[in-house]
Amino acid sequence: MEDIISIIANPERRKIIRLLTEKPRYFLELARELKISQQSLHIHLNKLVSIGVIKSYIVKSPYGPYRKYYALNSDFCIELNVLNGLYHINIWNPIKEFNGVNDLKDLEQLIDNIEKESDLIKSLRLTNTVLREINRRLNELNMRRLYLINLMAKARRKALEIIDKLNVNYVERKILKDTLGSDPEKIDELIDKIFTEEIELITRELKSKICKIFGL
Amino acid sequence: MEDIISIIANPERRKIIRLLTEKPRYFLELARELKISQQSLHIHLNKLVSIGVIKSYIVKSPYGPYRKYYALNSDFCIELNVLNGLYHINIWNPIKEFNGVNDLKDLEQLIDNIEKESDLIKSLRLTNTVLREINRRLNELNMRRLYLINLMAKARRKALEIIDKLNVNYVERKILKDTLGSDPEKIDELIDKIFTEEIELITRELKSKICKIFGL
Repeated sequence: MEDIISIIANPERRKIIRLLTEKPRYFLELARELKISQQSLHIHLNKLVSIGVIKSYIVKSPYGPYRKYYALNSDFCIELNVLNGLYHINIWNPIKEFNGVNDLKDLEQLIDNIEKESDLIKSLRLTNTVLREINRRLNELNMRRLYLINLMAKARRKALEIIDKLNVNYVERKILKDTLGSDPEKIDELIDKIFTEEIELITRELKSKICKIFGL
Repeated sequence: MEDIISIIANPERRKIIRLLTEKPRYFLELARELKISQQSLHIHLNKLVSIGVIKSYIVKSPYGPYRKYYALNSDFCIELNVLNGLYHINIWNPIKEFNGVNDLKDLEQLIDNIEKESDLIKSLRLTNTVLREINRRLNELNMRRLYLINLMAKARRKALEIIDKLNVNYVERKILKDTLGSDPEKIDELIDKIFTEEIELITRELKSKICKIFGL
């Protein structure tokens, strides 16, 4: 799933995603907006379809030729925090059910009320006010999040120091570091993953050593 | 600044950053850990230095040759939210001063208390508990954040519909869309930026058209 970062790292692919978050668009529409060759647009679209971020479908038309439309396939959020002592990456599909957000329902009500306003300018102004309030609350949340992430980095640095002082071997040290702060229910799974990776690494090195000895 | 995403999109470069969040390392140490050629390691390191994410310095040694060390240069956080109706990208350097996080100070106290514990295993266990609690609170925050981001997408979709119904020209429509929900103090700046971009685009298209006509 980390591959999603590599694929959306390209600025043109990010622009495609940005355009499709507004509404589905057909091939020539995208080519026109992006001002890139149809060939490279094809390559970008195929990559984005292959990781499931966008999808395509044909729309029949009684007048002209059929049109191939592209649309956003899945919502996603990516978060990468790099701090002294911390490398924290998080990719997830936003779920639609939320718990413990009752104090945010007032904003939702405001948005639902926009529909009832018939004056376009007034309703646009109301939406703008709501968006500003959402931004304000998001900034507040981000402040708290950064504080927690800084604490996390601090606690991790201390934990790594302690682990380095413990009398344990290389693999045990790796497991302790990689399972720090994990959900107890997932620890078995994590340990299995680290073991598998280590065994693969040892096997690969052993094979290449033997091949070298035999001159293969 | 969005270029930072392109540069860290490469999995090997992400692995370098990950290693350096733990502690500074010297060139051969990194080459050994990453198992890649020294030549490509050089290229990766230079790119990361060029955007200011990492820095290098020489450490003199009385025994062996001088060693070039690499270390994390700046902390950063990247956030990308893609939802139906919303493309929201955010890159920032975490500041160290926080307001309104008094209810999180209990965790900081817990971390500072780790120092006082002399038993390594006990202090590692305490750190682990603190990290689990930080993770729990971060998940709670993320739930709220996602809720707000979903609301933001919903409000934006409504606003875009309204803007499409307004009797305004192409540039006015673009400005309305791009300044939605912005801080009133930054609106002047945003409008200037959009105008500059539009003028550049028009100039470029005009030039290429004239060149075509004259066969240049």
